[in-house]
Amino acid sequence: MPELRKDPVSDRWVVISTERGRRPNDFGSISVGSEANDSKFCPFEEGNEAKTPNEIVAYRRQGTQPNAPGWQVRVVPNRFPALRVEGEVSRSGVGIYDMMSGIGAHEVIIETPQHNLQLPDMAEEDVEKVLWAYKQRILDLQKDKRFRYVLVFKNYGKAAGASLAHPHSQLIAMPITPRYVKMELTNCREYFQQKERCIFCDMIRQELGSGERLVYESEYFVAITPFASRSPFEMWLMPRRHLASFIELPDEGMFQLAKCLKEVLLRLKKTLNDPPYNYVLHTAPNPVNRPGKPDYWGTLLYDFHWHIEIIPRLTNQAGFEWGSGLYINPTAPEEAAKYLREVKL
Amino acid sequence: MPELRKDPVSDRWVVISTERGRRPNDFGSISVGSEANDSKFCPFEEGNEAKTPNEIVAYRRQGTQPNAPGWQVRVVPNRFPALRVEGEVSRSGVGIYDMMSGIGAHEVIIETPQHNLQLPDMAEEDVEKVLWAYKQRILDLQKDKRFRYVLVFKNYGKAAGASLAHPHSQLIAMPITPRYVKMELTNCREYFQQKERCIFCDMIRQELGSGERLVYESEYFVAITPFASRSPFEMWLMPRRHLASFIELPDEGMFQLAKCLKEVLLRLKKTLNDPPYNYVLHTAPNPVNRPGKPDYWGTLLYDFHWHIEIIPRLTNQAGFEWGSGLYINPTAPEEAAKYLREVKL
Repeated sequence: MPELRKDPVSDRWVVISTERGRRPNDFGSISVGSEANDSKFCPFEEGNEAKTPNEIVAYRRQGTQPNAPGWQVRVVPNRFPALRVEGEVSRSGVGIYDMMSGIGAHEVIIETPQHNLQLPDMAEEDVEKVLWAYKQRILDLQKDKRFRYVLVFKNYGKAAGASLAHPHSQLIAMPITPRYVKMELTNCREYFQQKERCIFCDMIRQELGSGERLVYESEYFVAITPFASRSPFEMWLMPRRHLASFIELPDEGMFQLAKCLKEVLLRLKKTLNDPPYNYVLHTAPNPVNRPGKPDYWGTLLYDFHWHIEIIPRLTNQAGFEWGSGLYINPTAPEEAAKYLREVKL
Repeated sequence: MPELRKDPVSDRWVVISTERGRRPNDFGSISVGSEANDSKFCPFEEGNEAKTPNEIVAYRRQGTQPNAPGWQVRVVPNRFPALRVEGEVSRSGVGIYDMMSGIGAHEVIIETPQHNLQLPDMAEEDVEKVLWAYKQRILDLQKDKRFRYVLVFKNYGKAAGASLAHPHSQLIAMPITPRYVKMELTNCREYFQQKERCIFCDMIRQELGSGERLVYESEYFVAITPFASRSPFEMWLMPRRHLASFIELPDEGMFQLAKCLKEVLLRLKKTLNDPPYNYVLHTAPNPVNRPGKPDYWGTLLYDFHWHIEIIPRLTNQAGFEWGSGLYINPTAPEEAAKYLREVKL
């Protein structure tokens, strides 16, 4: 049974995922960059539906059966989940240490039946379907009173943590709000309390004004290379209208988001020769759903602003950074934005 | 000129190191794991002293000249410093953004003249010399009133960010206290205010009592796999006696630390077939040295406890973790400790 454990010194939660239990010998083949060992068999391919756990939801042609060909997007449980979906969230302590049962949902969003068709090369309508799958799953998982947060993310390329090449994203629903999201929530709230303005709205205004870090701009969305980018060519994608939660995005916004996401990923691909990257959706925590237990963050948020952070994995300095929390970025975001804007699509 | 920039949403500082300016094409060869391109020429070798900037300090045979053969440990400025040592720390703002001039010292500690002799295989006396170099440089850099913190760290292996194979560590003196250190300081102080005990001392007591995460124990030091390890086989190495700062370690403690560090690194090497790793020294911030500007953290600390964190780089999930601050660790620390204790040396 996996466990959530809290480090008392840093207040950092960690998932000890013993189901994936790794012994010393298991690490032999993990040397990053050895993309060669991408196995020939792909469980995410059309026709191989029986090789994944049963689908949770799929967008498929009328008349086709669940767990059979005919789908466009397919959501299945992760076969090697970091957290387990069955059971209650129980908290306990051992001396100075705190822990929680490792309850959560870990799902895979298979973005397309085509093995080599990545998001930047899909039709906008098909990218939109992927986003709808995110939304539908978040809405569904938010009903589960055990979960405080649903984190959607994508690992692209082995160096970014992807173990299968077939286009897919993942989500983890969990009984805590992830630390970085919490920090953003805290700072956004503080800013709002001081100024009665959203910090993201202020940032968007400033970025549109200066233009020097702007990569994409439409009526609905902007994408920028953030002022204090941790990684070369890091991008943030934000709705221009203030919205705390991704699920509040109106229907027509979904297509606009698909357009924006496809274009910035294409710009990234063209500028950097198809680099590995991660993206993560930072949205508001789940609404309060534990009766009698009001959650500071689950209340209606005026101060947060959902966004997607795209982090190309170009530098391997993360070790020092892992130990210090200080990032060294060798490419100025203004330069990165210029390259991303000017690249030929 | 490098810049320190603060992300307003996460309060995270980033070094934009434009001197190392990287354009899109420069990332081509960075694919992690391509250790093959370790160049034949090594600037850290004995006899190649002219290929590094002039040494800052060296432990050498009597009668030998600076920047010439005859040394055992040699400290030189980093040729590609993340921060620049010349200039004043000036703060400025651009709209909602804050920045600082990127002032700091970035030095390389060459641990031995022998290209292939890593710390776990050195004589204890030679490991001790490396530690003395850390101490001497910290003491010297603390006199510089511009710096709030001196961070000592080591990248071992390309996957851990090392660009040269020759045994070396690094240090960065900087005008801010790194975020993770600050978080630890905050939590330690809170714990101390509540309990009037040091959280690390409590942790050491508990770990010695249970023994299940203990890897090394001597009269002076313990090494454990922390309860909420972020990474498989993560280890923390702590003095048993309460000391906020590494530089307070009495002279005889230096040899004891060398013994401990050598042994735990050897255990790591044997258990995991010479894995890449990072370690980082978390010590108290520099004493207050800006007249008239008392620094909350620079005062005498009863509540912090210096330690070394060793993080093997075995999993490549850092991307998701980078975006969430949540770590997934597939090896229980209790199991890791057992392997590390039982491995044949």
